[in-house]
Amino acid sequence: MEPYQLTATEAANLIADRKLSVEELARSCLARIAARDPAIHAWLFVDTDLVIRNARELDKLAVADGPKTRLHGLPWGVKDIIDTFDMPTTQNSPIYPAVHTNRDAACVGIVRSSGALILGKTDTVEFASGGRKALSRNPFNPAHTPGGSSSGSGAAVGDFQVPLAFGTQTGGSHIRPAAFNGIYALKPTGHLVSREGVRMSSITLDTVGWYGRCVDDLILVAEAFRLPKSQAPVPSSPKGVRVGLCRSPAWHAIEPAGEVSLMTAAQRLRDAGAIVEEFELPAPFNDLQDAHADIVETEGGRSFLPEYLSSYAILAPDLRRKVENARGVTPERLLASYALADSCRPAFDRLFGPELDVILTPSAPGEAPEGLHTTGNAIFQRMWTLLHVPCVAIPVGRGPRNLPVGIQLIGPRMSDRRLLDLARILAPAIDAHPKAALRELCG
Amino acid sequence: MEPYQLTATEAANLIADRKLSVEELARSCLARIAARDPAIHAWLFVDTDLVIRNARELDKLAVADGPKTRLHGLPWGVKDIIDTFDMPTTQNSPIYPAVHTNRDAACVGIVRSSGALILGKTDTVEFASGGRKALSRNPFNPAHTPGGSSSGSGAAVGDFQVPLAFGTQTGGSHIRPAAFNGIYALKPTGHLVSREGVRMSSITLDTVGWYGRCVDDLILVAEAFRLPKSQAPVPSSPKGVRVGLCRSPAWHAIEPAGEVSLMTAAQRLRDAGAIVEEFELPAPFNDLQDAHADIVETEGGRSFLPEYLSSYAILAPDLRRKVENARGVTPERLLASYALADSCRPAFDRLFGPELDVILTPSAPGEAPEGLHTTGNAIFQRMWTLLHVPCVAIPVGRGPRNLPVGIQLIGPRMSDRRLLDLARILAPAIDAHPKAALRELCG
Repeated sequence: MEPYQLTATEAANLIADRKLSVEELARSCLARIAARDPAIHAWLFVDTDLVIRNARELDKLAVADGPKTRLHGLPWGVKDIIDTFDMPTTQNSPIYPAVHTNRDAACVGIVRSSGALILGKTDTVEFASGGRKALSRNPFNPAHTPGGSSSGSGAAVGDFQVPLAFGTQTGGSHIRPAAFNGIYALKPTGHLVSREGVRMSSITLDTVGWYGRCVDDLILVAEAFRLPKSQAPVPSSPKGVRVGLCRSPAWHAIEPAGEVSLMTAAQRLRDAGAIVEEFELPAPFNDLQDAHADIVETEGGRSFLPEYLSSYAILAPDLRRKVENARGVTPERLLASYALADSCRPAFDRLFGPELDVILTPSAPGEAPEGLHTTGNAIFQRMWTLLHVPCVAIPVGRGPRNLPVGIQLIGPRMSDRRLLDLARILAPAIDAHPKAALRELCG
Repeated sequence: MEPYQLTATEAANLIADRKLSVEELARSCLARIAARDPAIHAWLFVDTDLVIRNARELDKLAVADGPKTRLHGLPWGVKDIIDTFDMPTTQNSPIYPAVHTNRDAACVGIVRSSGALILGKTDTVEFASGGRKALSRNPFNPAHTPGGSSSGSGAAVGDFQVPLAFGTQTGGSHIRPAAFNGIYALKPTGHLVSREGVRMSSITLDTVGWYGRCVDDLILVAEAFRLPKSQAPVPSSPKGVRVGLCRSPAWHAIEPAGEVSLMTAAQRLRDAGAIVEEFELPAPFNDLQDAHADIVETEGGRSFLPEYLSSYAILAPDLRRKVENARGVTPERLLASYALADSCRPAFDRLFGPELDVILTPSAPGEAPEGLHTTGNAIFQRMWTLLHVPCVAIPVGRGPRNLPVGIQLIGPRMSDRRLLDLARILAPAIDAHPKAALRELCG
């Protein structure tokens, strides 16, 4: 097994035991990138010399003081709407070709201070909002999209080019690429992780999340971010865990692969002893998709006004339309959309308790669509982003086109750590072939 | 009269009529800065050559194509937690001595694209949150604070060093300096103005605002930001305007100068024909101050985690305490604080209608306190920031120590333009001596 094939957790253990150096791990990932990325196009910027230099520094530090934290030396991909002090940020936009901001975004600063090795910047939908698509391709079939807008981060982790990466979600930009690339993801509770230094699209919805190759990888990062610990006890096995099977108001958009994925996950959980029961959201939740659109369009219009004024000719038409309020959202309608979200959030939180530990729901309609003209449909993610609830994406297996399909587990706001702990218990049942991707791709 | 003494509106008219060049105006402000700033310390960065170069470019552009907008050539001060592509940003922190981010914050980009001339960066409380105070002094008495955290922006506009400036408010950082420096300010509806590129302290509360020397100045900028236009008709005189005189739940902190200021404004409005009636907020609003503290401390903790990890030794103790959650805010309490704000916001909006056009309330307890160890008490601003409502600061006159005192007018969310239109009608009655500051300071 090559170092690039390791999960972050496995690599962290080897580094802690001094059985693997940061430089060895970095070189292994860089070699994988060199071999695979000409076909996958996950990356917009990788400076090999810089990576090796930083890896050696981290090795020296580990020799002198021991690993800084469990993240010490773990390679990271950073979505290119996120600033890095030593690498350019392009936002995949012709308006900002390659800006050196000389400052780390908060999320980058946190993992870098924890000893992480920033490998490079990953391709993204322009501004993570509209305009240009990423050039990234799905590692399971390069004729298909890896999803978006966190296209490169999802593809890079799915293709074993890097064990960990940052993505962001405003609609479905983080969880969908996880589903399409057969990887694990946490989209944290809204506002729980600082999005300083991340290109803003929607001020109330943009959320930074991370990708990994197992739930333990996600927990490793959650610890670095000091997400609040769970107070409630976490069961030690799936037995008796109460799972709400939620088709969600978006069910009309489900595809056969998505339905099979959800039902397979439910059945596997039942087989493992969990109590899986149908779960329907109250009626007001049906309007959250429209509210999400009102908010994203209006807040997006405010976010892209600078580019509209400075660079109208090269600003993408869909972003111009946000500024021009093509959706025609009145201030009253915007406030009503905020009010709906504000009332649904605590109502959703209150659904959890002795009768319900976690919600099981689709992470995407089905497999990744063919072509790079689309990044897929965000309909199974938007509502949860608007609710500000934590979401964990877990792979289930392969669909009829041999592309990954998955589900997401969801909990109430601020329960991120408990949700991850539950996901750690439940994922081995859901993800029946955790090493399938590895075998297939690295075979 | 020297160009530096002009309001932004007066200067814009002269520039449009080609009676004043951008360079003349810039040189006048720069001379005022050179003469006064050694005593006032409003600025952290002014590059005279850069300003003159940019001013000449704007003059050439105006000759070739006419003024870009009504903001063409108007000099701006930018609070130094706000990024500017051609000037360093320090955040007044030893952690970031002078970072060239090479990218404009959204608010800077919007006014720059509208033709504004960025004069320089103004001093601020560290990160606009805690730690180091600005060195800025009150132009009416340098032994007193100009308020904070937008200390330099408030002092620079109050001292006639620049007609317009950006500040930010998370608690009371924008409106209080307006009150203490005898100037006008708009703190817009929360989330209405992009805060991209502005140092984040509290993700749900940080708000970018601007200072001017009259309501028309504030409107000039509101137009550049395309704040949504008012649908409801605006009266043409104070006669019959319904004003709610709101002592607010913070009234226990009022000082004699603040009380006189509020009552004077109320009486002047009555004399001008407005209907001023006592107005009391519903009981749940009493808890907004505590909710604000919960939110600011918790969100601040997440915002300063990068510096806590990277620069613990030089991170200010009050900022460390946020990260350490010294206030002991549990996730449940945080969510309850969010829920209170979420329910009070629409409840507040609904108070307005035929019976109530605008609320009149203190902008600070009284005059600016003596000394630079404090920037004053934010108790009369915090609640409104949490409610996300637009606030317009208007000077009333001088207190017993001959320092400025003022009030603020407040409307429902998203009514910023209507609030400004109402303020334009009401301010001439409230601000009985609009040129007093000018006479006093400019002799």
